[in-house]
Formats: sequence, C-alpha cells, structure tokens
Amino acid sequence: MVPHLVTALTGPINELEQRILESTPVIERWFRLEWMEHTPPFYSSVDVRNAGFKLAPVDTNLYPGGWNHLTPEMMPLAVQAAMAAIEKICPEAKNLLLIPENSTDTFYLSNLLQLQRIFYQAGLNVRLGSLSKDVTSSTTIDLPGGESVILEPLVRSKRRLGLKHFDPCTILLNNDLSAGVPGMLEDLHEQYLLPPLHAGWATRRKSNHFKAYEEVSKRFGKLLGMDHWLINPMFNQCGEVDFSQDSGLECLRSNTDALLGKVRRKYKEYGINEKPFVVIKADNGTDGMGVMTVRDVKELDALTPMVRERMAQAKAGKVVSEVIIQEGVLTNERINRAVAEPVVYMMDRYVVGGFYRVHAERGVDENLSGPGSSFVPLAFEQSSQMPQPGMKPGASVPNRFYMYGVIGRLAMLAASYELEATDPDAEQYD
Amino acid sequence: MVPHLVTALTGPINELEQRILESTPVIERWFRLEWMEHTPPFYSSVDVRNAGFKLAPVDTNLYPGGWNHLTPEMMPLAVQAAMAAIEKICPEAKNLLLIPENSTDTFYLSNLLQLQRIFYQAGLNVRLGSLSKDVTSSTTIDLPGGESVILEPLVRSKRRLGLKHFDPCTILLNNDLSAGVPGMLEDLHEQYLLPPLHAGWATRRKSNHFKAYEEVSKRFGKLLGMDHWLINPMFNQCGEVDFSQDSGLECLRSNTDALLGKVRRKYKEYGINEKPFVVIKADNGTDGMGVMTVRDVKELDALTPMVRERMAQAKAGKVVSEVIIQEGVLTNERINRAVAEPVVYMMDRYVVGGFYRVHAERGVDENLSGPGSSFVPLAFEQSSQMPQPGMKPGASVPNRFYMYGVIGRLAMLAASYELEATDPDAEQYD
Repeated sequence: MVPHLVTALTGPINELEQRILESTPVIERWFRLEWMEHTPPFYSSVDVRNAGFKLAPVDTNLYPGGWNHLTPEMMPLAVQAAMAAIEKICPEAKNLLLIPENSTDTFYLSNLLQLQRIFYQAGLNVRLGSLSKDVTSSTTIDLPGGESVILEPLVRSKRRLGLKHFDPCTILLNNDLSAGVPGMLEDLHEQYLLPPLHAGWATRRKSNHFKAYEEVSKRFGKLLGMDHWLINPMFNQCGEVDFSQDSGLECLRSNTDALLGKVRRKYKEYGINEKPFVVIKADNGTDGMGVMTVRDVKELDALTPMVRERMAQAKAGKVVSEVIIQEGVLTNERINRAVAEPVVYMMDRYVVGGFYRVHAERGVDENLSGPGSSFVPLAFEQSSQMPQPGMKPGASVPNRFYMYGVIGRLAMLAASYELEATDPDAEQYD
Repeated sequence: MVPHLVTALTGPINELEQRILESTPVIERWFRLEWMEHTPPFYSSVDVRNAGFKLAPVDTNLYPGGWNHLTPEMMPLAVQAAMAAIEKICPEAKNLLLIPENSTDTFYLSNLLQLQRIFYQAGLNVRLGSLSKDVTSSTTIDLPGGESVILEPLVRSKRRLGLKHFDPCTILLNNDLSAGVPGMLEDLHEQYLLPPLHAGWATRRKSNHFKAYEEVSKRFGKLLGMDHWLINPMFNQCGEVDFSQDSGLECLRSNTDALLGKVRRKYKEYGINEKPFVVIKADNGTDGMGVMTVRDVKELDALTPMVRERMAQAKAGKVVSEVIIQEGVLTNERINRAVAEPVVYMMDRYVVGGFYRVHAERGVDENLSGPGSSFVPLAFEQSSQMPQPGMKPGASVPNRFYMYGVIGRLAMLAASYELEATDPDAEQYD
C-alpha cells in the first residue's frame, strides 16, 4: 500500500518501473510475510534516487524530522499507522514522551508539533521532554503561525524517565543521538524506548545498513526475477580515514577506484551512457556536511587542504574517521528545473506520505541536503478512479510513487535487519 | 483516528460535540482497549444522524456497497486498513474471493471494482465469484467508463469454495444474504468466510444490534460523563406483526405510543422544542422500502390499506413480520438545501472515509435511502495545519467528521458485540 501521489517525473514508465508496478500483489504479500518475522522501525524516512535505469535508496533516517512537510491529506494515514504501531507496543498507553533534538529552529519545532498532532489523534497525551541543559523549567516557544511548542525538563528516577506529573509508557526519540547516548536514557527497562539506543548515530553505521539493504535487495530481485543492482547502490568502506593525513587516504583511493570500476562495468553491461560517480560520506552521521561526489579517483589526490579541513570538521566538530564509499545514483526528478529527490515517510510498516527535497544549486549527481535545500509536498493523484480502457484494476493511472514506496520499504526492512544484527541485547543462537 | 473531512454543517460546535472533540486521547485509548477484547467486523458502514442536541447511528451495514463513492484521497486509508485486516486473518494469503450481490447495476459494479482495487493494492489477487444462476461461465460486464468487471461461477468442492484455478484463503461476502444462506457457503471450515454467515440478514436482527449499541453507548457515556441518550436512539420491538391484519397492529400501537412518550420526556428534560417521532422498520432487512416515520400513534390507525399492502410486500416479496420501533433522530445536515445524512465507512477498526446520502424530496425526519437518493463525497479539510491562536495541537480546526467517526465506530463495536452474542458456534461459559 502506497498513497498515489503525483510525482514530478511524468515520462513513460520504463521496464524496471513496469516490473514493479505489475507485481503489486506479489510484492505486498512478500512484505506482509517479512513483517511477520521482523519488526519494522517505529518510524523512518528514506531518500530515494530515480535514475530511470536504476532506482535506489541513498539514506535511511530512523529519527525523521520534516513531518511538517506532509500535507493534511497524509495525516490520517500517519495517524492510522501510528495507531497500529502503538497498539502493538503498549495498547493501554495514555502518555507518550517525545524527546526532540535540541534545535529551536522554527521548522524543526513545526515538525515536533506535527508529531504531537499525529500521536494525539492516535489517542495519546504527548509531551516534549528536552535533553537540553537550557531547559530547566517548562518553556513555551511560539511559532510564527500562532501555535506554540512546550519543552519541559526530563525527570529521571531510578527506573523510569518522564516529566513532572507525567509518566509515559513509551518514550519516542526524535533525536538521533549524534552527540552520544545521554546517561538519562540508559537502563530504562520498564518503559519502551523507541527507536532503541543502538539505532542512534553513536552506534549506527551506514555500512551496516547498506549491507543489510544489499541482502534485502538480493531477495527482492530474486522474487521479481531481476538483477538486484537495479535497486541496490554498491558500496565499499574504509575503517579509519584521517583526512588531515595523506596516509589515511590510501584506503579511500583504492576503494574508490575499485568501486568506480564496478559501476563502469555495470553501466557497460546495461549500455548506459552516463559518467559513473561515487559518493563519499561519514559512516556514522546523518547530515550532508561531509558528503562528497567523486567522478575520478584523481579528484581525491587533488583534495585541497580546505576541503580536507572541512571534512575534518564535519559532523559538528567530529573528525570524519570512518567513511563509506557508495555508488552514486543520478536523480531524474526535477521541480521547476531544480534537481529533486523524493523522500518517503513511513510509520510502522506503512508508507504514509512523502515530499521532494529540492536544491536549485546542485547537480543531478550531488547530495541535495544541507543549506539551500527546500521541500515541495507531493499532491495526491486526483484521477486514480478515472478508468482507462484495457487497464487492470488498480493500474489505471500508473502510480510512480508506488515504486518509491516499495524502495522506501525495502530500505526500512533493511533497517530492521540491521537493528537485529547490531542489537547488543540480542540472544545469540549458535 | 478519523480523517478530517469537511462536513456540510458549518455552524458552531455544540456542547456534545465539544465534549467528544476534547476527549480524543481518552476515546482513542478506550477503542484501543476494546479492540483488544473484541474483533471488529471486517468492514462496515454506518448511517449517522446529527440533530445538534443528539448524534446517533440509525443503521449499521456489515456488507457495505458504495465504496465507489469514496474519493481517491481515501483510497490509501482503505488500503492500509485492508492490509491490517488481512494480516490478522491470513497473512500468507495470495487470493481473495469476493462474492457480490446478484445485481448488475452499474453503480454496484463500480463498487465491486473499487473493492477489487483496494484489495489488489493491499497485496491480493481478487476475483469475483457469483452466486447467481445466470453466471455459468466467466462473464465480462463493461462499465461506462471503459473498465470492466468479470463475474465467474463459483466452484464448490467438498471442503473448499473457489473458482476454476483459483483457491482463496479468504472469502469476502459483499452480499447480505437477505435471500437466505446458499448451501454453497455452508460448512466451509478450511477457509475464512467473512463476515460470518450469522451476520447476514437471514439471521441478523436490528434489535440485537441496537441492544448491543445501547450497552456500548452506556459505557461510552460513563467514560465521558454524559447521558448516553445523547448518542443512543431508543427502541422497542414487536416479535410478529402482520400488517394485513388489524390484530397484529396492537403491539405496534402500544410500543409506538410508549416510545413516543419516552422521547417526549427526554425532549422536555433537555428543553428541546422539536416534535418527537419514531421510525418503524423491518427488524431483519436492509433496504428502505418498509421504513415508516410516525409522529403520532393515530397515524398507525389511519394506515390505509395501500400502505399496509406496500409494507406487506416490502423486502422483495417477504412480509414484514418482525418490526423495530426506533426513536427518530433528526438530521441537521443539508447539501444545497436537500436533507443529508453522513455515512461513515470503516475497514477493520479504522474509519477510512465517508460521504453524504442526500434526498431532495425527503424531510429531516424521514429515511433518505431508496429511489431518489444520491451521494456527495466529503472533501478533506485543507487547512488542518493552519494554526489558530490559543488552540491545542490537533484541535486547530474543529473536525466535526471526527465525531461522526466516533459514532460510526461505536456502532461498529456494537456490531462486534452483537456478532459475539449471536454466534451459533460460540463456546458457552456458565
């Protein structure tokens, strides 16, 4: 199930897209069976790139912000999915504690308000408990539209975390723990803490995620009888790279060269007339500061000290030490000539909406996150009930967003595999 | 969770509505807990009447048609709910067999197409198996828009029901079994037959439903600290009434008189300046043919032989023998001056959409079903994210449809109680 949203891309459906569209019942059943064995992340968002010949996820966020960019029509889907999620975790719950990032950016606060709205409508009292040292008493922050957000200081007892006069059954993190795991969140065994601590960037590695995604894409490729490369971005990794030293670059150079070679061979196999590129990014971070597009290994040698400095400073002061080198995926999507990529939003196992991330100053082979990017909501298809002769039920108007929803869910499933594999409390079976 | 649809009624929110709106988290949690104990009907639709001072269901359909009146924006909600329903019943299912009414009415066939679309997107191959003796081979019926519906003859083996080369895990009835239970549907113990046979009108009684609804409304009234009459239509019943004989009318007369008196006292208690009325209808049927509005018991004495004849012929040839006398609920909703009532559509435990049933030639105290009625889709609220100063999150723009969704779900919950109470296979605990 994926809402029928109108994509910016309106050209004809290609072979890969057609294959996915016509396999809807098979795909949905496959997901249904997977979710019997694996627990989906509580919520997630996935950046998808559609190169036409290839459709792949490039980033999977387990603490999605940006819920404020979902349109009103998407809200009931989010609420319905939130109900399903809550029901499984803590059906008798009255209270949900939401722990946000320390940001007081207006857009981020609107995101919090939207999350609050979703869970309120799903039947929970939602309050915000801040990890920030600046929040020592209940703090109301007004938003431009006239609404406001109330941040409250967290209150930790020996066994439980809450607020003054507020004892939640479930604690939902909207904070990716880039700065490490605060002691306050540790050893909470009586309450549900979601996502689990090891989903935070203090522990998580992109390479683990894309390893799990590769496995998922292989199984999915087998299901549909297609080369899994068509949906899988290949990658290599380097354990430790100190950008301030030449020595650390050798691993990066050889892996980049090898990966570019692999992509080149794939392009040749499929007769693709594009220039292969790879994307180098921190293995343990979310923001786009340290993301670099490389089309030739020589570009690495030419890294200016300034670039090295920037990368060394990336991730808010942390030196980029572990890196992932990922096959770059072009994006064919454009909004008013600006390069765009769809972002798919999921709650529990359901796709609840999405929007475009747009960056007017970036190319089709560049990262679109970071300063200068904007968001364009996706509209619902209005004509899905307008029948067209000779078409199967459900396929009258091709739902291109359906494919993005499939790719988004494959990445979400990979996150679920990943979290199982990296769970420090998992029981070991030999 | 209820989608924020724009109701025709735009006046200020009254006290009853305010009470329901501000209790959202309490209400949603209460439903969550109820669904842990009770199984919701697979799908349902409920006719709701909003008199302003009172908001109540007047009919609960367990084989809803009219899915074609849902707008494209409601489709993903229906699909998401269908996924949740299927997952609980038969997660490994590939095939769903849908058994329709024998009608070849174009609107009804569009409803089938819509159901087919919903379950296809939820991951099932859906085919239509007809109970009609006229369908002896695969029969394609073209619809005006260019799409078509394929009806196939049912194939019954000793233990299973299906079609040629089509063996379903689940069989979904969209046929209310008014004409009795066909032998073909009996003794199917290997497949899921939904709704269960005793939900069909061969067994079901409105009086059982409204008895269960009264129980539900009492509990809900207690939860919100309000008189349950504000959401409950009172009723009396008569076991056997033969409209062709004067003798059979005595029970009807005394019960009507008693009920009108009860309603009058309630109106007095609340200072309501309206004329009480009751609605007399068949206890065991769905269509509106035999529905009669009575404002004074004298109207019963004045029943002309023609009216008696019509009622005797009601329900497609069956004599109305068991009747329910129900407190009439006025409807304040109007579309372009025509009297309207909202119909709430549910799949599994979720409200997925709704529309207005409109009848230009009927009054505010009359049944709106039957010839001359039409349907007006509800639009999604576009401004639910537009904040208003001083309002709580989630309550910025009052969602009047939320209340209809609450009442719809209360009736659905009553149906679930009702089906448990009337289940012939239920285990008895003494």
